Parts: sequence; structure tokens; C-alpha cells
Amino acid sequence: MRIEGWFSHVLRVRYQETDQMGVVYHTNYLNWFEIARTELIRELGMPYRIIERRGLLLPVTEVELKYSQPARYDDLITIHTRIIDYSHIRIQFIYEIRRYLQEQGDRPEDAAEETGLPLEGDLLVTGMTKHVWLNTSWKPVRIDKEAPDLYKLIQDNFPKKEG
Amino acid sequence: MRIEGWFSHVLRVRYQETDQMGVVYHTNYLNWFEIARTELIRELGMPYRIIERRGLLLPVTEVELKYSQPARYDDLITIHTRIIDYSHIRIQFIYEIRRYLQEQGDRPEDAAEETGLPLEGDLLVTGMTKHVWLNTSWKPVRIDKEAPDLYKLIQDNFPKKEG
Amino acid sequence: MRIEGWFSHVLRVRYQETDQMGVVYHTNYLNWFEIARTELIRELGMPYRIIERRGLLLPVTEVELKYSQPARYDDLITIHTRIIDYSHIRIQFIYEIRRYLQEQGDRPEDAAEETGLPLEGDLLVTGMTKHVWLNTSWKPVRIDKEAPDLYKLIQDNFPKKEG
Amino acid sequence: MRIEGWFSHVLRVRYQETDQMGVVYHTNYLNWFEIARTELIRELGMPYRIIERRGLLLPVTEVELKYSQPARYDDLITIHTRIIDYSHIRIQFIYEIRRYLQEQGDRPEDAAEETGLPLEGDLLVTGMTKHVWLNTSWKPVRIDKEAPDLYKLIQDNFPKKEG
Repeated sequence: MRIEGWFSHVLRVRYQETDQMGVVYHTNYLNWFEIARTELIRELGMPYRIIERRGLLLPVTEVELKYSQPARYDDLITIHTRIIDYSHIRIQFIYEIRRYLQEQGDRPEDAAEETGLPLEGDLLVTGMTKHVWLNTSWKPVRIDKEAPDLYKLIQDNFPKKEG
Repeated sequence: MRIEGWFSHVLRVRYQETDQMGVVYHTNYLNWFEIARTELIRELGMPYRIIERRGLLLPVTEVELKYSQPARYDDLITIHTRIIDYSHIRIQFIYEIRRYLQEQGDRPEDAAEETGLPLEGDLLVTGMTKHVWLNTSWKPVRIDKEAPDLYKLIQDNFPKKEG
Repeated sequence: MRIEGWFSHVLRVRYQETDQMGVVYHTNYLNWFEIARTELIRELGMPYRIIERRGLLLPVTEVELKYSQPARYDDLITIHTRIIDYSHIRIQFIYEIRRYLQEQGDRPEDAAEETGLPLEGDLLVTGMTKHVWLNTSWKPVRIDKEAPDLYKLIQDNFPKKEG
Repeated sequence: MRIEGWFSHVLRVRYQETDQMGVVYHTNYLNWFEIARTELIRELGMPYRIIERRGLLLPVTEVELKYSQPARYDDLITIHTRIIDYSHIRIQFIYEIRRYLQEQGDRPEDAAEETGLPLEGDLLVTGMTKHVWLNTSWKPVRIDKEAPDLYKLIQDNFPKKEG
């Protein structure tokens, strides 16, 4: 699902993701960022699974998270993400996690269909992650050289604004 | 999704669920059992979230797992579950986890639509869980007394065979 | 720590390991089994890390868990484990997880020192795991051929009873 | 363990904490921050468990993480933490995660005893977390009013510098 530069992914909060405060344990939002990032890359046309098979890794180098409201068990939440900066060796994503109002019996697929405006819903968490492209020896690589087709997908989908 | 007494739930393997053997860490299948169980109960017509709000808990008392093949990152897997035994105070589920062949770009929703025969695919894991109905003081309760509507849903969907 | 054939490992329950029932989420006990198994193998004289570097894997093929009482946040719990059966290609462990009474300020190290009788304390969970020795291609291997030194450590520490 | 204003906690990397890159999955460092924070608060003289029983919660409102090098399975790592700012309603911690060189058979307790200089070792991750004091209705509270004994422990251990 893609609207106005944001890619969006709906998921339902798992029981395991709660803690004894009765809300989602705070590390899970960071895991959800990854899930949305993965789906964004899949939508671009090249699953991260394939990228790893080609010998490229994209580990996280920096994270920021701000928590506004907690997600709760069984909530339908949407993670919105977009690439806001990138170079030949680095890439940066931003994120918004929002909660949809839910009715008994809601299913993520239904919510996905109904969501014409992905940035609606209560804002739960915002954040960003920075990444670096590495080879399997954990050495930095130039993605435009190692995987020009992938780099083009990024350029086409997230064109840089001229100064 | 429900076919021939089995309820089925499709999910995609998360990066976090892998370990350094390159496959899914073995505890995650047990977590996936819960996710399928949750969706089965939702399909019956009463989300587990609502059950807890009514003051009932359904903790696990016993688990069995048999591992045939490992799931891998980004696999689309299906968890099939059904209730095979229950009484006024206990309930038992069985499970089969299977992997669908996947193509680049597959999405769980697509797989769900295509799966006319839910028990196809490579068998990864089988298992069972037993549970007991408790109140919020962790004392056993008779579900047919405390939540007769819920008990009826179970009876209607999983009728006991007469001897 | 080793007493009467059992190896024991003390750990403190993490906040992340709780769920909204206010107790430890049920999959974590299975993870704790692994931690105890790892420490048992270390005590035998060959860390599992080294075993993997030698090209051997020991994935789980079967699990059983029985839950008696729940562990809670910040509890000091002890996982007791022993090898109860093994062959050239397989190995089976059993487990008991128990809780020590704890006072404000307890630390795992203190508890470990005080525990003359490791099988005291409230019984929380019992279980077993079965494993198979594989090479890095996930093919079964004979451990007595591939790692006779490791096999001897197992034999010396867990002698088989003659019929 | 406390040296020069830093509290330190040693732990061993669990197999579950790895991913298929062969290193620790990036969300676990954030979980480890919590473990160190918990031990710091215990050292101050009031376990977080007791704080929650008194009706106070300390959820995370903001996180920053910078990753330098990855931790690996079975590594002994040390999380160093200190409180760098606080008010009547908020508190902020900073963290350094470092890896000790390890030999076959190392145990965390041994490492803890040997560590005269806690900020040695390879730097893996730095970070900070901000928190707010809430009551069980998730409303902000003044900790100096609600738990003056706890507030005094913080003041005594982390005196504010006068301007």
C-alpha cells in the first residue's frame, strides 16, 4: 500500500508483544519498523531476502524513537515508512506508527482495504533508522556499483530534490 | 479462513524470528501457535481480547512440538489449528505449520486467497497445546457457567462425537 | 553448578519476558531450556559456540513442556537440566525450572552460592527436548566420528547404565 | 558493580538474540538497556518490582541508539549506565555496551570480578532513554511527592551540579 510517498503496512499486535504494564513492550516498535521497511523494499520490486542472497547486508547504524501512546494487545496498527535520505553507501528511513479504531472481528486485510488515508489514526510512535550497505565480510560497499538495479529502484521511487 | 474443521492463518516470517543457523529460532513456532489460536477464537465470534475483558484467562498448561523442517526468513507459512478436545474447564488444540512455495513479491493476503487446500505445502512443525480456564485470581472456572455463550460457540463449531 | 547429575543455571526474569497476564509469556521457558543446555555443554568443557565453529549444529527436533506455576518479573529462577539419553546421532535433555524465594536486592550470584540443594524451590515448569547432530548442510552426522572428543565428554559425564 | 558514576551489568548473549546475519538482532540492545537500568535501580536500593507495586510506572518516552560493532552469540557483554538528568517527573539514562575478550569457558561472574575498569573493551553500542513517572492510570506524577524516599535515592546517587 503506497500513498503520497509513504508505504504502509498493517499488522495486529501479538500477545507476546505485550508486557505486564498491559501495553506493548517498547522494543517491539523497533522490530515493527523493520517489518515495514521490508515491505517497502518488497514494493520497490526487490525483496530484502533477494538482496541478502546477492551478498548485500543493510544493518542498522542509528535509531531514534519517540513514544506518544502505547499500542495494546490485538490492536490493528499501521506502520508508515518512507526513505528520506540516501547516498551510494547509506540510507535513512522515517516511520510513523498509528492505531486504527477497531471493532470486534476486524482483520488486518479489511483495515488495509478501508484505509484511504494512511496517516489517520492515533499517533503512537515516530522514529527513524539509518543504515549502511555492507558486503558479507561486513565491509561498506557502494550500492550503485554492487547493485545498480536496486539503486535505480530507490532513485525512481524517492527522487532527490534539486537544491 | 476455515476448511474441513481446520482454521488457518497465514503469516510471513520476520527477520527477528531467525537465528544464526539461518532458520527460524525454535521457540517462535510456539508463538505462532498462539497467533493461530487467537484467530480461530476470533472466527468463532469472540476475540480473546474480549474474553480477557470478561475476566477469563486461558493459560497454557502443556505443550508438544515436533520439528520436521525449518522455516526461513520471509517464508509465507500457514498455521492450521483445530480444537480436538474440551471440557467445562479445559481445552486442547492441535496444529500444523506448513510452508507455501513463494515467488518474489508474494504477499500473505494473496496466498490466503489462493489456498483452496490448506493442508498442502511442506510440513514444518506439528504440535498441541492444552489450556485451562482461569479467573483473574488464577483459580479454575467452569466456562459453561462463567461464559455459556462462549462455551456454546465452541460446542457448535467443534461438536463432540457420541461414543 | 552441578549436583547429582543435574546442571543448574540461575537467571533473573526480564521485564520483556512478561506479558499482560502479569506473568512470564509461555514461550520463554523453552528459551530458558536452551540457556541451561548451553551452560551444561560449557561445563562439560566445550562451549556450543565452539561446536558450531567446528561445523556441527544441534537443532531441536522435539519438545515437551508442562506448566505448573508461572514465573514472574524479577524472579530468580533456576533451570536444572541433564542428559537422559543419547546415541551417535541424537541427544535428549530433561529440565526442571524452579523459583527461589527472593528478598529485595537478591542477585543471581548470591542465590547460586546459597543453593546447596538445587532441586528445592517451587516447581514451575518441567520439560524435555530432543536434538539431532547435523553438519552445516543440515545432514545428520555421527558425532562419535565427527567430534569424538565431544562424544567422550558426554559419555564421561552421563555414563549409560548397563542392562 | 559501580565505578565512577557508572553502574555496570554483565550478561552473556543468548542464541535467541542472534539473527541470520550471524550477529545480535538490533532490537536486543534496547532490551539490554532496560536490564542494566533495572540493576542500577536495584543497586540504589529499590527494585523496580517494588516501585511498580507502589503504583508507579516508568515507561520509555524516547530512545536513541548508535551501533558501532555487533555483539555475537555467547559474547560476554557489559552494559554501563548512568542517570544524566532528572526532574520531579522525568528521568534520563545513558548507556554504553562493550564486549570483553572472552576465552572458552568464561562465565559472566568471572568477568564481573575481573573488571576493574568497566569502560574497557570494544565499544558496541551507545544510547540514551528518557522516561516519565506515571501512576497506574497512566497519568504523570511527581515522584518527589509520590515516592520521596525513591527521589532521595536518586538525588543522593546522582547529585545535580550547581550552575
